[in-house]
Amino acid sequence: MISVYDVIVVGAGPAGLSAGIYTSRAGLSTLILEKESIGGELMDREMIENYPGYPEGIMGPDLGSKMRTQAMNYGAEIKLGEAIDVENDEDYKFIKTPEDEYSSRAIIFTGGAHPKKLGIPGEEEFTEKGVFYCATCDGPKYANKAVAVAGGGDSGLTEAIQLLRLGAKVTLIEFLPRLSASKVLQDRAMTNAEFKYTCGTKIESIQGNVSVKSITVVNVETGEKSHLEVEGLLIRIGLEANTGYLKNIIPLDERGQIEVNEKMETQIPGIFAAGDIRHNSPMQISTAVGDGVTASISVSRYLGIR
Amino acid sequence: MISVYDVIVVGAGPAGLSAGIYTSRAGLSTLILEKESIGGELMDREMIENYPGYPEGIMGPDLGSKMRTQAMNYGAEIKLGEAIDVENDEDYKFIKTPEDEYSSRAIIFTGGAHPKKLGIPGEEEFTEKGVFYCATCDGPKYANKAVAVAGGGDSGLTEAIQLLRLGAKVTLIEFLPRLSASKVLQDRAMTNAEFKYTCGTKIESIQGNVSVKSITVVNVETGEKSHLEVEGLLIRIGLEANTGYLKNIIPLDERGQIEVNEKMETQIPGIFAAGDIRHNSPMQISTAVGDGVTASISVSRYLGIR
Repeated sequence: MISVYDVIVVGAGPAGLSAGIYTSRAGLSTLILEKESIGGELMDREMIENYPGYPEGIMGPDLGSKMRTQAMNYGAEIKLGEAIDVENDEDYKFIKTPEDEYSSRAIIFTGGAHPKKLGIPGEEEFTEKGVFYCATCDGPKYANKAVAVAGGGDSGLTEAIQLLRLGAKVTLIEFLPRLSASKVLQDRAMTNAEFKYTCGTKIESIQGNVSVKSITVVNVETGEKSHLEVEGLLIRIGLEANTGYLKNIIPLDERGQIEVNEKMETQIPGIFAAGDIRHNSPMQISTAVGDGVTASISVSRYLGIR
Repeated sequence: MISVYDVIVVGAGPAGLSAGIYTSRAGLSTLILEKESIGGELMDREMIENYPGYPEGIMGPDLGSKMRTQAMNYGAEIKLGEAIDVENDEDYKFIKTPEDEYSSRAIIFTGGAHPKKLGIPGEEEFTEKGVFYCATCDGPKYANKAVAVAGGGDSGLTEAIQLLRLGAKVTLIEFLPRLSASKVLQDRAMTNAEFKYTCGTKIESIQGNVSVKSITVVNVETGEKSHLEVEGLLIRIGLEANTGYLKNIIPLDERGQIEVNEKMETQIPGIFAAGDIRHNSPMQISTAVGDGVTASISVSRYLGIR
């Protein structure tokens, strides 16, 4: 028995729930399929200060639950289940979970992307207690504080520059023998007296009590260890999108993110993507929401002319 | 005396205020310049049901005031003044209002776009009381009701199809002798038994008491008048963006909207655009917010590497 919908939204984070609010409100039968946690990354976030419309901030799970309620109020169905296979026919698409099979005329893939973790002792324990992954999101908490940045690529340097602008004292730690960031970014960081960096070094562990107090840095050649006192550690060593099962269906970029145009259309008619899972996402809650809404309007247009 | 900022945001609607929240939070000195009403189009809206995060809805002015507070909390300056001239030097841009002159390294143009009005008796009086301009925004109120749609182009037909899907009975009124919408959209509408249309006819006036009761339709050749009983009138006869003063500075599309890529960059380094003012905007509050945030992140990157 295959359940059939006008549109299936894969992922119930801010992009997926926002898409579902709009498609169900537009009268399209909508299934939102979530593999883990309804609300997505919102459910792991504490106070969110920069979602426009909540000047006092809002707790992540609270915002997630409001968006879920809003989608359900308009009739979106939300089910737990992990999409593990997708088939694309001309008019209908099929999604399989380990338990069920669903079909629809359009699919919106959301489901996010996550900065890669270092996978070292203390990282889980101190996440949001000093360990963070985004200067735009959490940087202002570290104004005038000592912060380490893991990662010497373009993204790491960009995050470091943003922390420096906020007044942080930044030590950047790169595993490779030299920074791989573009020269213009390196120059920009180096002009700031509060910027230091080391190459050929890796972070071995994170120490603290309530929050981060220091990190242990190891020279990868000599094995020599040193301790660096910091109140924050920003990790930016790459990105992981949960798109492995899609690689034969939709064009992905080199990081595994889904290629879309500004209407959130992929190259496959009837397949759309929104939020952090898509190429060039600014990786913010509000941009994921905007993407979800944009995708849902594209779905309405797509179904309108079929 | 020219006041100098890192970034000037033109327009204090949802796109402009969201951009200002992010740029000021990133430590950039930010001026938001608004010609009319802080909060922009939000200040004219009643209950907004589809801004993700407010499942019970939120009044437009309330949402506008929350976004204003949020931007000011992070240090954005908001001033009333109409940008009437812009100059672009390599490193600095200049904006003139009738009273003052400002300068900055980056500019984000917001300031919206408005569906064109018919300019007929009753239109102002019954706006949001039956007269509306967007099916995605207000369509659900007219499920199963008789609604007229003014405009037989692609946009008018798209709006009509969306209303039909919600169960409305639609009569479309076109001024020209035939519909100009693409055939596929026309076919789609015609398959619905609740769709009617007339060409060579214009709406002369709107009648009602508390809300719309009927419209008066005139045959443009014979002058013959008829009354059509409707509870709603959706007007979609084109779009006006407030960009006339920019036409020598930034590339605009044929509707006067600003051309941007998905990072909200225009072709001019340091000049960005966000919200309904930009080409291909989905014209939603949440997409304007997403655009503003995207533009602000692009500004941070742009200023970071200079």
